[in-house]
Amino acid sequence: MPEDSAPLTVRELKAFDTAANGKPFTSVLVIKKLAAKTASNGNTFYSSELGDRSGSFSCTVFNDSPAFEALKTAGEGAVVRIDGKVDFYQGRFSPRLGKVTALAESELGAPGLIENLVEVAPEDQQGLWQEFQAFIDAIAHDEVRMTVRGVFDEIGETFRWSPAAVAMHHAYRHGLLEHTVHMARACKALLPLYPEVDADLAMAGILLHDTGKAIEYEGTLATKRSRRGILQGHVVLGYQLARKHGIKAKLDADRLERLEHIILSHQGEPEWGAAVYAATPEAVFVSMIDNLDARMGMVQRALRQTPESDEFSERLPGLNSQLLTRKLRPPASPQLPL
Amino acid sequence: MPEDSAPLTVRELKAFDTAANGKPFTSVLVIKKLAAKTASNGNTFYSSELGDRSGSFSCTVFNDSPAFEALKTAGEGAVVRIDGKVDFYQGRFSPRLGKVTALAESELGAPGLIENLVEVAPEDQQGLWQEFQAFIDAIAHDEVRMTVRGVFDEIGETFRWSPAAVAMHHAYRHGLLEHTVHMARACKALLPLYPEVDADLAMAGILLHDTGKAIEYEGTLATKRSRRGILQGHVVLGYQLARKHGIKAKLDADRLERLEHIILSHQGEPEWGAAVYAATPEAVFVSMIDNLDARMGMVQRALRQTPESDEFSERLPGLNSQLLTRKLRPPASPQLPL
Amino acid sequence: MPEDSAPLTVRELKAFDTAANGKPFTSVLVIKKLAAKTASNGNTFYSSELGDRSGSFSCTVFNDSPAFEALKTAGEGAVVRIDGKVDFYQGRFSPRLGKVTALAESELGAPGLIENLVEVAPEDQQGLWQEFQAFIDAIAHDEVRMTVRGVFDEIGETFRWSPAAVAMHHAYRHGLLEHTVHMARACKALLPLYPEVDADLAMAGILLHDTGKAIEYEGTLATKRSRRGILQGHVVLGYQLARKHGIKAKLDADRLERLEHIILSHQGEPEWGAAVYAATPEAVFVSMIDNLDARMGMVQRALRQTPESDEFSERLPGLNSQLLTRKLRPPASPQLPL
Amino acid sequence: MPEDSAPLTVRELKAFDTAANGKPFTSVLVIKKLAAKTASNGNTFYSSELGDRSGSFSCTVFNDSPAFEALKTAGEGAVVRIDGKVDFYQGRFSPRLGKVTALAESELGAPGLIENLVEVAPEDQQGLWQEFQAFIDAIAHDEVRMTVRGVFDEIGETFRWSPAAVAMHHAYRHGLLEHTVHMARACKALLPLYPEVDADLAMAGILLHDTGKAIEYEGTLATKRSRRGILQGHVVLGYQLARKHGIKAKLDADRLERLEHIILSHQGEPEWGAAVYAATPEAVFVSMIDNLDARMGMVQRALRQTPESDEFSERLPGLNSQLLTRKLRPPASPQLPL
Amino acid sequence: MPEDSAPLTVRELKAFDTAANGKPFTSVLVIKKLAAKTASNGNTFYSSELGDRSGSFSCTVFNDSPAFEALKTAGEGAVVRIDGKVDFYQGRFSPRLGKVTALAESELGAPGLIENLVEVAPEDQQGLWQEFQAFIDAIAHDEVRMTVRGVFDEIGETFRWSPAAVAMHHAYRHGLLEHTVHMARACKALLPLYPEVDADLAMAGILLHDTGKAIEYEGTLATKRSRRGILQGHVVLGYQLARKHGIKAKLDADRLERLEHIILSHQGEPEWGAAVYAATPEAVFVSMIDNLDARMGMVQRALRQTPESDEFSERLPGLNSQLLTRKLRPPASPQLPL
Amino acid sequence: MPEDSAPLTVRELKAFDTAANGKPFTSVLVIKKLAAKTASNGNTFYSSELGDRSGSFSCTVFNDSPAFEALKTAGEGAVVRIDGKVDFYQGRFSPRLGKVTALAESELGAPGLIENLVEVAPEDQQGLWQEFQAFIDAIAHDEVRMTVRGVFDEIGETFRWSPAAVAMHHAYRHGLLEHTVHMARACKALLPLYPEVDADLAMAGILLHDTGKAIEYEGTLATKRSRRGILQGHVVLGYQLARKHGIKAKLDADRLERLEHIILSHQGEPEWGAAVYAATPEAVFVSMIDNLDARMGMVQRALRQTPESDEFSERLPGLNSQLLTRKLRPPASPQLPL
Repeated sequence: MPEDSAPLTVRELKAFDTAANGKPFTSVLVIKKLAAKTASNGNTFYSSELGDRSGSFSCTVFNDSPAFEALKTAGEGAVVRIDGKVDFYQGRFSPRLGKVTALAESELGAPGLIENLVEVAPEDQQGLWQEFQAFIDAIAHDEVRMTVRGVFDEIGETFRWSPAAVAMHHAYRHGLLEHTVHMARACKALLPLYPEVDADLAMAGILLHDTGKAIEYEGTLATKRSRRGILQGHVVLGYQLARKHGIKAKLDADRLERLEHIILSHQGEPEWGAAVYAATPEAVFVSMIDNLDARMGMVQRALRQTPESDEFSERLPGLNSQLLTRKLRPPASPQLPL
Repeated sequence: MPEDSAPLTVRELKAFDTAANGKPFTSVLVIKKLAAKTASNGNTFYSSELGDRSGSFSCTVFNDSPAFEALKTAGEGAVVRIDGKVDFYQGRFSPRLGKVTALAESELGAPGLIENLVEVAPEDQQGLWQEFQAFIDAIAHDEVRMTVRGVFDEIGETFRWSPAAVAMHHAYRHGLLEHTVHMARACKALLPLYPEVDADLAMAGILLHDTGKAIEYEGTLATKRSRRGILQGHVVLGYQLARKHGIKAKLDADRLERLEHIILSHQGEPEWGAAVYAATPEAVFVSMIDNLDARMGMVQRALRQTPESDEFSERLPGLNSQLLTRKLRPPASPQLPL
Repeated sequence: MPEDSAPLTVRELKAFDTAANGKPFTSVLVIKKLAAKTASNGNTFYSSELGDRSGSFSCTVFNDSPAFEALKTAGEGAVVRIDGKVDFYQGRFSPRLGKVTALAESELGAPGLIENLVEVAPEDQQGLWQEFQAFIDAIAHDEVRMTVRGVFDEIGETFRWSPAAVAMHHAYRHGLLEHTVHMARACKALLPLYPEVDADLAMAGILLHDTGKAIEYEGTLATKRSRRGILQGHVVLGYQLARKHGIKAKLDADRLERLEHIILSHQGEPEWGAAVYAATPEAVFVSMIDNLDARMGMVQRALRQTPESDEFSERLPGLNSQLLTRKLRPPASPQLPL
Repeated sequence: MPEDSAPLTVRELKAFDTAANGKPFTSVLVIKKLAAKTASNGNTFYSSELGDRSGSFSCTVFNDSPAFEALKTAGEGAVVRIDGKVDFYQGRFSPRLGKVTALAESELGAPGLIENLVEVAPEDQQGLWQEFQAFIDAIAHDEVRMTVRGVFDEIGETFRWSPAAVAMHHAYRHGLLEHTVHMARACKALLPLYPEVDADLAMAGILLHDTGKAIEYEGTLATKRSRRGILQGHVVLGYQLARKHGIKAKLDADRLERLEHIILSHQGEPEWGAAVYAATPEAVFVSMIDNLDARMGMVQRALRQTPESDEFSERLPGLNSQLLTRKLRPPASPQLPL
Repeated sequence: MPEDSAPLTVRELKAFDTAANGKPFTSVLVIKKLAAKTASNGNTFYSSELGDRSGSFSCTVFNDSPAFEALKTAGEGAVVRIDGKVDFYQGRFSPRLGKVTALAESELGAPGLIENLVEVAPEDQQGLWQEFQAFIDAIAHDEVRMTVRGVFDEIGETFRWSPAAVAMHHAYRHGLLEHTVHMARACKALLPLYPEVDADLAMAGILLHDTGKAIEYEGTLATKRSRRGILQGHVVLGYQLARKHGIKAKLDADRLERLEHIILSHQGEPEWGAAVYAATPEAVFVSMIDNLDARMGMVQRALRQTPESDEFSERLPGLNSQLLTRKLRPPASPQLPL
Repeated sequence: MPEDSAPLTVRELKAFDTAANGKPFTSVLVIKKLAAKTASNGNTFYSSELGDRSGSFSCTVFNDSPAFEALKTAGEGAVVRIDGKVDFYQGRFSPRLGKVTALAESELGAPGLIENLVEVAPEDQQGLWQEFQAFIDAIAHDEVRMTVRGVFDEIGETFRWSPAAVAMHHAYRHGLLEHTVHMARACKALLPLYPEVDADLAMAGILLHDTGKAIEYEGTLATKRSRRGILQGHVVLGYQLARKHGIKAKLDADRLERLEHIILSHQGEPEWGAAVYAATPEAVFVSMIDNLDARMGMVQRALRQTPESDEFSERLPGLNSQLLTRKLRPPASPQLPL
């Protein structure tokens, strides 16, 4: 166990048993859920869920507690430092909260802090972001490039931090940036093989295809679908972004329509969210690369997360299977006994 | 109209009208179907379909016709030279057949002959075949390479001529070779981006994944599913080929099982024919590249076959849509009227 | 048979037999298809389909025929007056075309002319259009009403003539107008029963929900999907129209988003084309009324088209069944023999 | 907290902590489950679940407890008054039961009692029932009306109390009555718009369409499917009821068959339970109104149950979405920032 | 060709060519379709389809033809003797009809007559019928047996002649009887292995499970779905029959409900028409035997109909495959070349 | 409660309450799960699940406990004798483990021991195994019999103990043997009725159809899918076994291919795992018998496991329904009140 003065993770807190009752502790946690409820005596209380990357616990906070106002002000998704005392309710860890302080935006940059709170893309996001800019710059057609540039001038900061999904593939901080850069790399590698695909449109389509997710997902630490996400969906939101900036950039009607079409069709099948089926060489190409990198992203995450001693990962819903994560045996391994 | 002495295509034959009744002609055609039937008087006759790349016509041949024995000997799928006279039955072109001569294997090599009879892959098959050999040679792991080499020593000639499908994608002579080479190119381009994928296994998996189709499809000029194709399917047939040659090449058990798995899972979903879901990094990777190139193959064929004056292709069943085949307008084209 | 000088319908033309060969006739027909092809001698010819409400026939027109240029100028979907002579090719009616004259827009208004060429909504379109205007005027919220008004100022004329579908329900001239008015009537009748539904938003949603079809379907006499229809789909096209005019009308953000949502979700299920699931009271309400009137429209058309002597209609694909079209027996009819 | 002498709700009971051990209390609860089990020593005991509208708890009762016989006699679904003492087992509320007394049918009418035990339709059921009778009386065709009357003379009392579903729409006491009356209102409002629909058959079809549910669901306080519900399903049970009373009322064979058909087809699709597809104007009409009101019922319930402070409801399985429950902003709200 | 005086089959008629124009012939045919239409001159004519087991042809009959009244009186599904003269219309066989005489019920018994008109079950129907009676007699439980007996006293004659399907399995005259007897044999063979199945209920369930088809299919020579078939479906019709006769036979409520349940659930899945899922041992047992014999019936028919020279049958929709019909090679055949 | 010295079942252990804290006990249990984890202090510990047929509990074992090494050596799936002391953690039974001893293979044969640990097929496995051998011996065709014999010489011991499934039907020890014998009995009973089925091939197909499961499922006491099961699936594994031994037995190519086909197709539909659709009489026959016995196996298990006092079983996922398990009422039971 670490010293008492250092902040404890949820896993460490849950390792206490009732013998530790009353022991003071400090933690830095995300407010994952915060729902106001009314008790039968008419008083308001919060049913909250606090957690970090290692787990979470539920906590009821009545309106006469000093923590009540602090939670209310901080709000769902905020990061708070908590001073509390170990306690259990009905056998579950349920601390008495003392002081609750919301961390300022500036404090979130402390080394390792975010990484302890949420899963983060494994690649350096700074490097990904620079590579991303280079992909934009490499678009030869002026208006196409200006369209892409315009979209990221508007939503770039949010895009940079977004996960690519709530669950499924690349579902972590910077995941959207990581997935998009990976697709852009694959696009660049494959373009020489499919000369019927217009390079600028395909690359612009890849860079823009999931921008609607920067609007659909809300909260960088506790992801949920936003109002616009529920009412319009990321496909239409991304299409609208491209259209707005395409018109601003005076992109010709033919290219703009093809670019919008890539976004509208990239999900592949209507039941997966595509507004229409892919009907241009570029749209078919982008939707297939999206598919490829989404699946490979699931593979990569399972390889990172499965202990080396295990032969297979947990079952991955996106692959409908467990994944064989055990490394290949060395060349001299035995032949199959037939 | 060409001179009478040159062989006529089916399209040219069908351009005749009844004024041409009795006119002699020569054609080189494939026997697409040949079904023996019994007339009510007990006599046998053939209901046959003869055709080339430009079309086909039906023809009934009674057993007292000189053509009867010639067709019988040649059999379904053979190429025959026909001397006939123009005739019509119930308004349809229905020639009187004179002499029917089966072409020898050696005669099929005449320039343009096969190309007139069936659709052929647009790329030079000689070049594709050499590139294919180079992909085999580039496999670094000895036993993996020897396994692949062994399979193609056994079925290479058939593989080289096979279509990749009866309908859908790459459904033409050499289509299987073309599709496999295209996948190998994509694999080579993408491998640096997905270092968790074993390069030798992935490449071997790609080269072998559809080898069962060389057994499943029968007849290079009139494709149909073979008995083994119906009873086992190309997935199991390809798996069996890889297993046999892997054991011969003394490939270690771990790699052989992973190689077999790529073949067993490459169709993606059980309802599309996969025996199991892809459960190794290589298997996920190969099945996604297969998907990508299959769809792009449909795009490429539609671009080749749609007249330039048309904006869209016919509806492509594999894409659930028509394809926009019209070329991008030049840069200076007008902006969308909004 | 009518006198020779009056224009003949396709059904009347097809009633001729070969005894009528060479007989001159006149017809007013739509050019349903017009495809340029190249003969083996390099000459261009048209493979065309000409028809009216009673049927259609195919016709090949070579480029040395006087009709060639006339057809080219008129184009697919135009209405032409044809002077021809009865002829048959391979047993099928295949007239020799003489003079082909395209009718001017102004000539199309001749009484009964359009009705003979295509199926038309059974209700008087003039009355429907006035009722439609009244529904717009009755929207109480100013910006909502101005949004709707704006859309129809832009696309009203096309909307007024469009079918509601290529096949399925209300698939005839003015069908889109008819279906929308019927939905508006149902909306008005049901609103008092569902007070949680905002009347203005629901009515505006109904009037706008299918406006994208006025862009998706092209050609008032020979319907096919337009380029924008294929690349974007009517759901997104209608959403875009509403958004543009909502912004122009300064509609508040909350209402505009809800109005857009009605359009984006009205198809019900993603596999039927909905961009998102209905997630507001108004969106659920509108999508259910759409469903109800679409099905009842199929019922109404089957009742109109099935001969009185038949007990059941043909099988209706949209209902997965034949429809019992026989009228209820009079009250005194016999009881079931049990 | 209320005084000790007043009956406590389950939510209030669960608010106790171990400090309250031994505290006496009284509650009025439904026996939600009652399963006899055999301990390893051969003794019988009950594993029971007791609850009210605010929640439920499990309770094991051995056969030497005075409560054992009382529970046995009362049976699953009965309402009991319980005198107990607060206790906890393994951290969960698990009271020691003292006296258990089943409430008589007559006592259930006490004001608010049922409402505390189960969710009840929000509209006054007395008024709904009168309106329902009026809908029957308004059927003009004598035998049709007598058929409907006959069915409700047989099952009316049960129908009046039944929920319309175990889960999904109108799943609460009187929900079946409420849903049916709402459909009847919608039917009356829409009939003038669809004159091809026979008013008497449609209204009779609506009133009878779900009567099988009064047999399929058993227990007014703890709903489960009955033996007949499992073995025949509500569609066939309702059909059988209509048939029996139609024959009694001497309804003519044509009308009876059409009325039976409405019931057999109202679920729409075979996979949702329809015996056949709707194949009469009335059957199509009724099944669409059923769909509309079922969905709107889910909307209405979500609006009632979602706290005003929330923008969206929980995800509603029947709508595949959360519902935007936040009221429309006042007219002067800001425009979308575009 | 047979002598002119003997009746010709449709296959023989179609073998004529235009050289035979005007040649008189006689045929015995079924009126497969008979649709009254109105010509543009207001005259009524019949568009009819006449055929036998070897094929069919279309024939237009105007109301001034002597055949018009004869066809009208005979009606769809009747067997008629036709005197006609060979003729062709637009290249298709289209005889001029002379005298048309409907055959009396008594004439249909002529040896081979029915067999020439429609496909008939291969087993002797007399023997099948006796075996069927014996299965009824062997039911030990009195009321169960009397219920079954009652149903067949009512519909036995129709049942005996019905096909088991319009397409798919046992789709021929006596097919329903044949399929039911085959299932009864399988039931008898399997009952000793599944002692948890009540023998009398299972056998009664099998004998009754498809009796609704005797009402759903109409016309023994030209099968189509009847009004009751469309409006209720064979599952409900069979249930109703069993219920009526079960009540008459005073069958106890428990057994009657289980017997009805077998019929309601025998189709297996709701999307295949089951009203409920099988929920008794007998219902599961019967639905599995139904499945087994239906599939084996398709196998048997394909074996009968595929020429011996063919290795595979045509594709069988009910099996989703072609069937290998080639006999097993003799024991001494060669081993697989591996 | 039994005496302290006798081993206690999990159900008995869980019946203790906190008053029994510290009480010593002995149990014989299966190690159902054993996962090594790392605590935040770097120490390794096991999260294990121990259980028998009556239930299971979780138990954390640190690496300084004497039980740690014993569990490690024994491994997942082993049977261990445990000496422990009753304890609770957070209200759940969580004993302190003292001595843990793995039972030797030889000790597992003690009467009733295995039966207490896992569910076992109800029929005597010794008798089933003898009957199974007799079915092999009864195959008349020498090479077919030798093929089957060869397979079971290789995998017989594992086959004999395997369950037929992880969940669903016959999911218990010896279940695979039991299901296969039941199918063989059904096959024998049905063969006389379907003479088109080759008896030897069908019987061999049945005996071999699921042999791949003996490889796919691993661990006789704690079933999970093996590596080969995940990567190849039981269909391909069984096919491979048959192929290997068919070649060894010099089975002729025709029969071997048909035998392999039975295995490849027995799952019926590709989405249930079939490599191809059944395309021989034997393959259709075997897949239907498999279906029948699988469903009846679910029925039989539900009848065994449902208490006599219950009318219905729990919902059975494989039947999509609860099962009526109540016995038929005696003959004199009352008629339905209609």
